[in-house]
Formats: sequence, C-alpha cells, structure tokens
Amino acid sequence: MELIIVTPFPDLVQSPLNTSIIKRAQDKGIVDIKVIDLREYTTDKHRQVDDYPYGGGPGMILKPEPFFRVMDAIGKDSVPGQEVILLTPQGSRYDQSKAKELAGTERLIFLCGHYKGVDERVRELATQEISIGDYVLTGGELAALVIIDSVTRLQPGVISDYDSAMSDSFEAPGLDCAYYTRPEDYRGLKVPQVLLSGNHAEIKKWRTENALRRTRERRQDLIQSIQEQVD
Amino acid sequence: MELIIVTPFPDLVQSPLNTSIIKRAQDKGIVDIKVIDLREYTTDKHRQVDDYPYGGGPGMILKPEPFFRVMDAIGKDSVPGQEVILLTPQGSRYDQSKAKELAGTERLIFLCGHYKGVDERVRELATQEISIGDYVLTGGELAALVIIDSVTRLQPGVISDYDSAMSDSFEAPGLDCAYYTRPEDYRGLKVPQVLLSGNHAEIKKWRTENALRRTRERRQDLIQSIQEQVD
Repeated sequence: MELIIVTPFPDLVQSPLNTSIIKRAQDKGIVDIKVIDLREYTTDKHRQVDDYPYGGGPGMILKPEPFFRVMDAIGKDSVPGQEVILLTPQGSRYDQSKAKELAGTERLIFLCGHYKGVDERVRELATQEISIGDYVLTGGELAALVIIDSVTRLQPGVISDYDSAMSDSFEAPGLDCAYYTRPEDYRGLKVPQVLLSGNHAEIKKWRTENALRRTRERRQDLIQSIQEQVD
Repeated sequence: MELIIVTPFPDLVQSPLNTSIIKRAQDKGIVDIKVIDLREYTTDKHRQVDDYPYGGGPGMILKPEPFFRVMDAIGKDSVPGQEVILLTPQGSRYDQSKAKELAGTERLIFLCGHYKGVDERVRELATQEISIGDYVLTGGELAALVIIDSVTRLQPGVISDYDSAMSDSFEAPGLDCAYYTRPEDYRGLKVPQVLLSGNHAEIKKWRTENALRRTRERRQDLIQSIQEQVD
C-alpha cells in the first residue's frame, strides 16, 4: 500500500512515521510512505503557498496551484482505485469502518490544509473529504497521521497478533473489556479473582459482561447501533 | 500552560512538537511541553513497560507501576486544577467545546496507552479519559498531539489573528464557508464574482449563506444542535 502526504510542513510528520508500528510496516515493505513538500511545487522566488482571501477577512488561504501541480506530477489515475483525501473539519467523520475501507486501497494521497484553509478549488482534486473529529487543528498533518496509523495497523502482517486487533474497541461491536497484568495487587488495587482462576469459560463470560457494561455506561449510542445491527 | 506527555515512545512526538504553531507557542513561552519516557520509570534491567494479560488472550498490556511512579514524581496536586488525561478509545469523545475547557487549565498530563491497552488500575490516576474519535490507533501519542495542537492554538497570542480562529468551523456554530485566493481563474475554475465585488455587505451575506448551506449538506446533525441552542 502506498501513502503520500502532501503538506507545506514536511518536517512535521517525520517522527511519527519513523517510530513504532508505522516504521516497522515500512521496514517490512508493507506500506510505502512518501512526503511531498508543497513548497517544491511553487514557482515564485519566495515559494509562497498561501495568500489573502478574496472578499477580505482574517487568515491566510492555501493557494490552489501547488496542489494542482502535485496532482499533475502524481497522475490522477496512475493507480487504479487511488483515493485523494482532503483533510478538513468539513469532511465526513472518520471512524473504524472507514479505516477498514481505506485499508483496502492501493494508494492514498493526503492533501493537508493549513492556516485558515485551502482554496475551495482544491476540492476538485479530492475524491474524499475527511474529518477526524469535531475540533479545529492547525493543519491536516496530524489528521493524516491518524488515518495512516489506523490504516497501517490493519494491513496483514503489521500487528503480529491479528486476534488482538480484532478484539479492539469498535472492532468487536462496542468497547473492549478491562485488562490487567502483573502484579496481582498493586498499592491495594487488585486484579479481579476470576482472571486468575484459569477457568476459561468464566473468564470469557466476565470479559463479555465487562465489555457490555462499559459500553452501556460510556457509550449508550453504540448500544443502540449494535441493537439495530442485531434486529 | 504546562503540557506533559507520558509515553513509552518519546521519540514519536518530537517532530510535531518542534514545527509550526506548537513550536512557536513554546518559543514565545506560552506553552511549556515536557515528554516523559515511561521506560525511565521501570526498575528492571530490560526496562519492560508491558506484560501479558491475566486471564490469557492475545496482545500485551502496559503495566501499572511505571505510570504510578511517574505520577508520584509529578505530584498529584502539585498544580491546582491539573488534569490527568488517559487517551483511550473508551474515553468520552473530544470536541471543540472540550478543547476550550482544557485550554483554560494550568497543567495537562497525557497518559498514552499502547499495545493492547493499559492495566485497568492506571485509570485510578486519570481525572479524565478522552477519545479523539471512534477508530483504533496504535497508541495514545497522536491523540495527545491532536489535543495539544487544538488547545495550544486557543491560547491568547498563539494565532496572530484571533478573529481567524473565531470564525473556524465549530467555533462559529456549524461549518465555515468556502474561501478563495488568487488567481481569479485557475484552469477554468473561477472565484465567485461577489467575492471580487468589494461590496462588504454582499460578501458577508454570501459567506453566511454558504456556511449554512454547507453545514446543511454535510452535517445535518449540527443544524439540529444549532436549532436547539436557538430555541
């Protein structure tokens, strides 16, 4: 799978791409990640990527030309099923089912906004507009990294224990159960006896009930959607 | 404002903290960011931060002791109103109103999960549990960075143009309007005439209508909550 980040701040994304699971997935050749500096696609001396908005008002807008030139260079349909994702708070909300959908794509290109936003015409280049949540970020880079992380860990061979990924929150319906590791008693906080019992049927039952109770307590909205799926 | 990230992967967060607005906010002394390596709070030779889950099953769990020791070192109430945030898909969902709330806090401490999750007892240390969205990430680091970015840009003096931040999506009710910058005509894609008219009343009207139409088309759920606020 090929992942391309287009950004006026190529340095910003470096350390997350070179640590932990994303790094390992690249080392194994499972994902190939490129970072394209938007400023290299400017034609003026100052390599200016932003300009004032027409109609006035505060804030700077990312110019359309560098994005169009990047896409000219990449090629619009050079990979079948390639998706061009504009990261914007106005996009549709990212979730785990979207992650699974994108995980099956051969190439994802991320266009990162910055400053006040991008020129409206840049939307013409995007096949999808995605928001990772209802909050405002300085730019699209962290959003692109969030999507890259969630999509990379779904690639076969990235997480050694596939079963582990499959029981995560949102993978199994609802939230995941509580987990404990050693020591059994830490500062008076104890591991539930059943988990030490060795009785696998009882442990499984406890985990299912625990997960369901947590989902009920914390995310009633998920219970509703689980019920709709069952009905 | 003081921001502390507690993580087994301190290298992961470096480049986003040292670029663009987050870097500038630190240079100006508006935010002070520390990264604490969880492994420095282990006591064994291998500096092991994770262990197998009680009750069996796939995946590794972050051990409780290093987190407790970090919090011992920081001090539980050393700063009045300090918030300790556990990043977890099971937390309450982060949004812009939460960003504003956290932006007024003197010190935020971020506890980053990783692997299959953290030992349930670590929750005892947290004053809040937050999820940045309904998707699964490798660890809490990107989530911590998202919160740090959104909270930092709300600090007075960080974004030069405060008005710009105030008209962002989710700041004004609903989504923001479309923006355009030069050139007027790019590859046949034209800037709406009204934005070139110099008629400020007409421009304002166009922007309000455009923002409302976009919100209606893309996020009917926000229209409802705006209506509830008005009623």
